[in-house]
Amino acid sequence: MVSEFDLIARYFDRPARSAVLGVGDDAALIRPAAGMELAVSADMLVAGRHFLADADPAQLGHKALAVNLSDLAAMGATPRWALLSLALPAADEAWLAGFSQGFHALAERFDVDLVGGDTTRGPLNLSVTILGEVPAGRALRRDGARVGDDVWVSGELGGAALGLRHLLGEVALNEAEAAACLARLHVPEPRVALGFALGGVASSAIDVSDGLVADLGHILERSRVGAEIELAAVPADAALAARLDAAALNCLLAGGDDYELCFTAAPDRRGAIQAAGATTGVPVSRIGRIVAVPGLSIRRPDGSLLDMEVAGYDHFAG
Amino acid sequence: MVSEFDLIARYFDRPARSAVLGVGDDAALIRPAAGMELAVSADMLVAGRHFLADADPAQLGHKALAVNLSDLAAMGATPRWALLSLALPAADEAWLAGFSQGFHALAERFDVDLVGGDTTRGPLNLSVTILGEVPAGRALRRDGARVGDDVWVSGELGGAALGLRHLLGEVALNEAEAAACLARLHVPEPRVALGFALGGVASSAIDVSDGLVADLGHILERSRVGAEIELAAVPADAALAARLDAAALNCLLAGGDDYELCFTAAPDRRGAIQAAGATTGVPVSRIGRIVAVPGLSIRRPDGSLLDMEVAGYDHFAG
Repeated sequence: MVSEFDLIARYFDRPARSAVLGVGDDAALIRPAAGMELAVSADMLVAGRHFLADADPAQLGHKALAVNLSDLAAMGATPRWALLSLALPAADEAWLAGFSQGFHALAERFDVDLVGGDTTRGPLNLSVTILGEVPAGRALRRDGARVGDDVWVSGELGGAALGLRHLLGEVALNEAEAAACLARLHVPEPRVALGFALGGVASSAIDVSDGLVADLGHILERSRVGAEIELAAVPADAALAARLDAAALNCLLAGGDDYELCFTAAPDRRGAIQAAGATTGVPVSRIGRIVAVPGLSIRRPDGSLLDMEVAGYDHFAG
Repeated sequence: MVSEFDLIARYFDRPARSAVLGVGDDAALIRPAAGMELAVSADMLVAGRHFLADADPAQLGHKALAVNLSDLAAMGATPRWALLSLALPAADEAWLAGFSQGFHALAERFDVDLVGGDTTRGPLNLSVTILGEVPAGRALRRDGARVGDDVWVSGELGGAALGLRHLLGEVALNEAEAAACLARLHVPEPRVALGFALGGVASSAIDVSDGLVADLGHILERSRVGAEIELAAVPADAALAARLDAAALNCLLAGGDDYELCFTAAPDRRGAIQAAGATTGVPVSRIGRIVAVPGLSIRRPDGSLLDMEVAGYDHFAG
């Protein structure tokens, strides 16, 4: 029997240009290029937790794929194929049309083929698996940071978190600020080209989805090192730079959803990293260095250290 | 910040024996063998739709993986890697312990590495992506059935659907029957070895997840052919064979969740198929043949044709 959810699946039934066999069989068939490793990642977005139930469907389609592309960017991998599993409370055509448009538009921009997935009735849930290719041995892992490396971050941080606080009525942004911050929150731009350009240059990388302190913390844990960060060097979103209170600091250091890259590299790679940023049109900022002492310390412009415990970041403090 | 859901994820953090890099980075890294195509599939199971909210967690862990392994079996692919994304209403340790035990036990039996996924709070949702390998050109697709091919099915059909009707109080099974049918429903055995053995022998294959009529119908549609089936040749579950009413017929022909394989092959491959069944310990039954006239007809032992429209199977009738 063909259900309304089988019909819905047709919104996602596009010819797969780069797969041996796309949607419509028990599995898709893909053929990774010789000498390549396959980078595979999955992210699940749930209504009420990762987005509001009344979120714009086209933006949601964009974001569901973007957060997965960002994971591959952080590996230095080139995204190739995606699978999308959707649970929907009802067969809402308008929603589906918007969602699939947002998803496909981003997929096409990055040459990603949607090769499989599932569609079913249930509480709204967006589950995406992404597959990409990276030359063997060239992936940017979390465990490669070395003492003496610089710590870098791409773009500006804190805008998405500030946009969320604006939505929640906790801060008042002017119209231009709100537009910029909500775009950061709802339509993140995965740093795929930069991540690829950093392959063979950076020593480790992660995407900033949970906030700089938490995500840099993952690099430090996996690499068994520490880091010293200069607060003044951390690139703040423009709307954030106009505010210098505790909430702004929290957005800057612990705000998630920016999907910038945080990465490390030996000091002799500074030129190569600046070139990677210039080539891909993404600003890169050197914000500190890797040290042997475990934990993360952040220095204010006056030389004093941020109290990580008071700031609520104690888990990653030494 | 490490949340309870990050902690939960540790239930699934096992060393990946066959991956370059497993759980714990932005993506896993895997290296498919040379000359292999990668078969990729995803299935999403939702509480209240695919299983009861109070289902045994170990059986659920088994089933969430088994239905995905079955998709690869139907491609003739060898499963290698899985990703598991879980939305859970609460951090229930006992449930997690049971679920992960059931999942890992089946994964180990089939040498599948869990290499990634996601864990978040939300309405119960189990989303699995499976990756496997198949020699290039040897995959069992749905579009390969040819006029004159035999139609085959593995094992027995209808037991899972009968078990569900027993659970719903619609039929009364004796204790032995109930145990057997509920095992078919809750702990399906994916026909991975049989599917692999059918590679290069069968002309098409699908797994019977939505019922024989619907799933064979997918082969017929994709292959642009029809089929004539002998009802008496369709292998019925033992508990079903003892009942010969309309409900039993519905379980046999339209009952889902059996996860047997339905496949086609040229008549000169009968010996090879019997050998594949014998080698892998799975009975195989020849139930009909592929014809040029589109649609599916099912012949009763008395020679009359089952009225597909009355039976509710009209979508696939010519």
